Amino acid sequence: MKQILFCVLLMSVINSYSQIDRVEPPNWWVGFEESNLQLLVYGENIGKATPVINYDGVTIEKVNQAKSPNYLFIDLNISENTEPGTFDLILEMPDGKKETYDYELKQRTRPAEDYIGFNNTDAVYLITPDRFANGDESNDIDESLNEKTIDREDDYARHGGDIRGIIDHLDYIDEMGFTALWSSPLLINDMKSGSYHGYAMTDFYRVDPRFGTLEEYKELADKAEKRGIKMIMDQVANHIGLEHWWMKDLPFSDWINYQEQFEKGEKILHSNHKRTANQDNYASEYDKKRLNDGWFVDTMPDLNQKNPFMAKYLIQNSIWWIETLKLGGIRQDTYPYPDKEFMSDWAGAIMNEYPNFNIVGEEWSYNPLLIRFWQDGVDNGYDSNLKTTMDFAMQGKIVEGLNEDEGWERGLHKLYEGLSNDFSYASPENIMIFPDNHDMSRIYTQLKEDIPNTKMALAYQLVLPRIPQIYYGTEILMDDTEKPGDHGLIRTEFPGGWSDSEVNAFTAVGLTEDQNGMQSFLKSILNYRKESEAIHNGKTIHFAPENGIYLISRILENEKIVLILNKNEEAYDLDLERFKELNLQNSEMQNLISKENIIWDQTLELPERGVYFYTTKFN
Amino acid sequence: MKQILFCVLLMSVINSYSQIDRVEPPNWWVGFEESNLQLLVYGENIGKATPVINYDGVTIEKVNQAKSPNYLFIDLNISENTEPGTFDLILEMPDGKKETYDYELKQRTRPAEDYIGFNNTDAVYLITPDRFANGDESNDIDESLNEKTIDREDDYARHGGDIRGIIDHLDYIDEMGFTALWSSPLLINDMKSGSYHGYAMTDFYRVDPRFGTLEEYKELADKAEKRGIKMIMDQVANHIGLEHWWMKDLPFSDWINYQEQFEKGEKILHSNHKRTANQDNYASEYDKKRLNDGWFVDTMPDLNQKNPFMAKYLIQNSIWWIETLKLGGIRQDTYPYPDKEFMSDWAGAIMNEYPNFNIVGEEWSYNPLLIRFWQDGVDNGYDSNLKTTMDFAMQGKIVEGLNEDEGWERGLHKLYEGLSNDFSYASPENIMIFPDNHDMSRIYTQLKEDIPNTKMALAYQLVLPRIPQIYYGTEILMDDTEKPGDHGLIRTEFPGGWSDSEVNAFTAVGLTEDQNGMQSFLKSILNYRKESEAIHNGKTIHFAPENGIYLISRILENEKIVLILNKNEEAYDLDLERFKELNLQNSEMQNLISKENIIWDQTLELPERGVYFYTTKFN
Repeated sequence: MKQILFCVLLMSVINSYSQIDRVEPPNWWVGFEESNLQLLVYGENIGKATPVINYDGVTIEKVNQAKSPNYLFIDLNISENTEPGTFDLILEMPDGKKETYDYELKQRTRPAEDYIGFNNTDAVYLITPDRFANGDESNDIDESLNEKTIDREDDYARHGGDIRGIIDHLDYIDEMGFTALWSSPLLINDMKSGSYHGYAMTDFYRVDPRFGTLEEYKELADKAEKRGIKMIMDQVANHIGLEHWWMKDLPFSDWINYQEQFEKGEKILHSNHKRTANQDNYASEYDKKRLNDGWFVDTMPDLNQKNPFMAKYLIQNSIWWIETLKLGGIRQDTYPYPDKEFMSDWAGAIMNEYPNFNIVGEEWSYNPLLIRFWQDGVDNGYDSNLKTTMDFAMQGKIVEGLNEDEGWERGLHKLYEGLSNDFSYASPENIMIFPDNHDMSRIYTQLKEDIPNTKMALAYQLVLPRIPQIYYGTEILMDDTEKPGDHGLIRTEFPGGWSDSEVNAFTAVGLTEDQNGMQSFLKSILNYRKESEAIHNGKTIHFAPENGIYLISRILENEKIVLILNKNEEAYDLDLERFKELNLQNSEMQNLISKENIIWDQTLELPERGVYFYTTKFN
Repeated sequence: MKQILFCVLLMSVINSYSQIDRVEPPNWWVGFEESNLQLLVYGENIGKATPVINYDGVTIEKVNQAKSPNYLFIDLNISENTEPGTFDLILEMPDGKKETYDYELKQRTRPAEDYIGFNNTDAVYLITPDRFANGDESNDIDESLNEKTIDREDDYARHGGDIRGIIDHLDYIDEMGFTALWSSPLLINDMKSGSYHGYAMTDFYRVDPRFGTLEEYKELADKAEKRGIKMIMDQVANHIGLEHWWMKDLPFSDWINYQEQFEKGEKILHSNHKRTANQDNYASEYDKKRLNDGWFVDTMPDLNQKNPFMAKYLIQNSIWWIETLKLGGIRQDTYPYPDKEFMSDWAGAIMNEYPNFNIVGEEWSYNPLLIRFWQDGVDNGYDSNLKTTMDFAMQGKIVEGLNEDEGWERGLHKLYEGLSNDFSYASPENIMIFPDNHDMSRIYTQLKEDIPNTKMALAYQLVLPRIPQIYYGTEILMDDTEKPGDHGLIRTEFPGGWSDSEVNAFTAVGLTEDQNGMQSFLKSILNYRKESEAIHNGKTIHFAPENGIYLISRILENEKIVLILNKNEEAYDLDLERFKELNLQNSEMQNLISKENIIWDQTLELPERGVYFYTTKFN
């Protein structure tokens, strides 16, 4: 009998043994519009537990078991006047054993309206954090992780850049004139290789220790904000890294797409990348499924956002980070790949909590119809809730147009006609423009290492009614000319970011004259742009290119800007008669770059090919 | 005293002498929605006359003098129940002398709703009439006109083709399977040279005698209609030929644009052709004016449609031709060049009178946003009233995609992604598609004289939800390869249209095997298309290209069409699993071209590169 009792007890212990490995989100706040909070609890056999909470205002509305016995999804309601504080989340196992987790409901530290998202008064600096600056060599290698090495000779290995490196150089970013910072993901990518890029996350609540700690991420966000720099977090709702902890114990049978094939070890279909299937009235069901459900690559399982627990998890995760870091924006990766109804819900849930926030979705399309489609405010049967889309179309036209000779509908006409498409956008001023990014050949390479053309591209983007984004290193002419388009090479170390750097772009030590020229050129325009009401809110007027000259102006009553792109190698006297509607006759204007003053009169001499930035606002 | 009286009488006669040279429109009808009719009366010093009409229901509402003393614009009201008949339009000169013009108000011969415009059940045959067939050699030369010669060796001279030639070959057009006929303009171009093309009209109410008479034009329209072929008239509201009779005596000082410069003999600015300025929110006033007011070329004065008499004249002229010829449609040239508010009024006035009519506007743009903009039914702040726009965008994508090797977003993907833009159109099925036209290189030349590619392009366009238009000679592989894009060469004589033709494409005498093959290929598809409910009204489903194969289907319950474009040179076994949503399993289908039957099973053998047209509807 004693033996039997012992056995029963032992079995009971084996069956019901539990510990809480994770509760996610790891904390929450009081005072959200959305009163529901769904906790994911993970622990061995936790699915059999009964949760108990005794806290004023917090009620358990529903307890959801998963297919895996090790998950429990608990729907809480947090009523409006719930006080902040910590409560015991008690999980009672069938055998009476109890596990307790201290769950904190924090006080929100600022009103929801004060989360001001990046907008067209900002200029965004994009960083690949592994390659920007290594501020803490002690975290370069973490032996507990799968990829244990750094190899600065290998463009696809980790190089040691980190959050501390960004913090250390916020002064540089600030002085350059940037007002928003978008870093590629800083969350853990515990992948066996290629973990440096950050887009194969293995835990949505953990900072990669090789980048730093959550505290350092908060420090970065705080210090950036103190300088007026908005933090934009790069998030990925479409996929995870294959080493994500979920992958060893998937909660439901439809947590990821093609899960059955994955579990059987079968070959899994990739996405067809036919992103037009999202809009296409004629798209086959087959193609739509392949687009949305196919895996991005073999090492990135595709999340099934149609599973309501997954959907809720992703939404709460985003809100957790906004609140934790006091974000000034989110950049959402691979926007057209997840289920688009989910993306609408996701963005809608965020904008519902933070009415002045902003999100930019990555739709890599050169088709203005798609840029138009995804932006909120267009009546097209789809409510995207997405304020900012990305202007790959204009990016492409600018490069094409600058690279080619002038001609009928060629050259600068491509810029002019490309920009005219703005008529179709709900709010062009909320669209993000960029010379390049971390996935594209460097602008200097795209423009065949032509400095006047590179300056034209940059200045043009910075005066457009857009949100400009510039990738780190553009200011010092970083290139990938040796192997154009090579991702590792595009994301080269920023000189000065490593203790052994001989050239230091932060201090300008060792920069070439061309690099110095570009850095100060960009610094002038960015700092002007920061305070320029005409760029932020002015009327735009542009004139069809003639004789290799394209003029665009931004106009407010007290500030008029004229930007001239000039493709003529020889000196050219520009007759100003054609532009008389700008009402600039006899105005004194300053060339922002050379600081020379002119009187806008009959003609303007353009001594050489390049960009001319004139403004009526100067001291 | 007698002498003095004689002198006074003589002066009086000299000053007031008048005869009515023209009244336009030369007649009108009772029973229009619009009760106002504005008559242009032209005659020496007619501006001083007082018009008198005594006819029940017809009242003179306003008499408008022009700047030139030789014009009078008379606003009539024709009340609802006015009987048809002829009235005396009496013009009393100040000296009491009277001129009388017999003005006829005809009975309309059919209800307004019965003017059914071309639509997507039609296939349109486009003809350059000077080059199609010379049915009447007696009218080849008209000594009273400026261009007095024909020269069949010169691609830019007249060749003698005429209306009789079209009438003579309606059986051919009909048998080929076309159901609408668009001829380039048949109105008089009394220009000194280059008059053959028809776009420099010198009288909006007169058929070019070298093409035939008004009676012959009516005969053509009648005979076409009897065969179920709709007549589409090519009209030009933007400009006229420099030899237009107006140009010697312009009624107002703003009858044409840049009139002052013209009258001074100064150089006149051409249009900048920056058609995007019509939409562009940032376009300068300078560019908008240059686009709309600049002359198309030196020999084509630009009409000022902002002059209300001009606007009314153009609208009435269009209606006069619809009613006179019982048209099945209008093709309006250079649509984005005139004032766009006028174009809206013009199209609106026509559609108001003929609710089932159709008009296609020529906007030569590869930008789907503009194709979208001009089509009626889009909420974009501009009410175009234009049902049909032209799909240069798809035309371009088809040529690009067929000409290039397959690859990421290349080759057939260009067709697939191009078609996906249909989501943005108000009614894609009302958009006109074409392999080429009279202003473009021949499709066979564009496709590098590759027959399988040419067949793919044609078959694809003929199954799309579109209104297809095919230029004469495409069916026999006419080309301009010797000088690609040369307008005169593009508009080569159709073999068989001249009495000395050794080759006769109407009878197939002397055609090569390739020409025969293309002719019967097109004939098969056009005749199938004519009765195909699936093409007219079916659901469209297409599948992203894979391995050089693109499949598009048109589906109704009782008729399913599958069109496969195959770029593989070697035989290819197509796995049909991917297409199972078409529910074709075990269906018997016929290859429309080879007439071979197949069972839609597991795989389909595609023996060679080319197009495969399968249908479930066959005998």
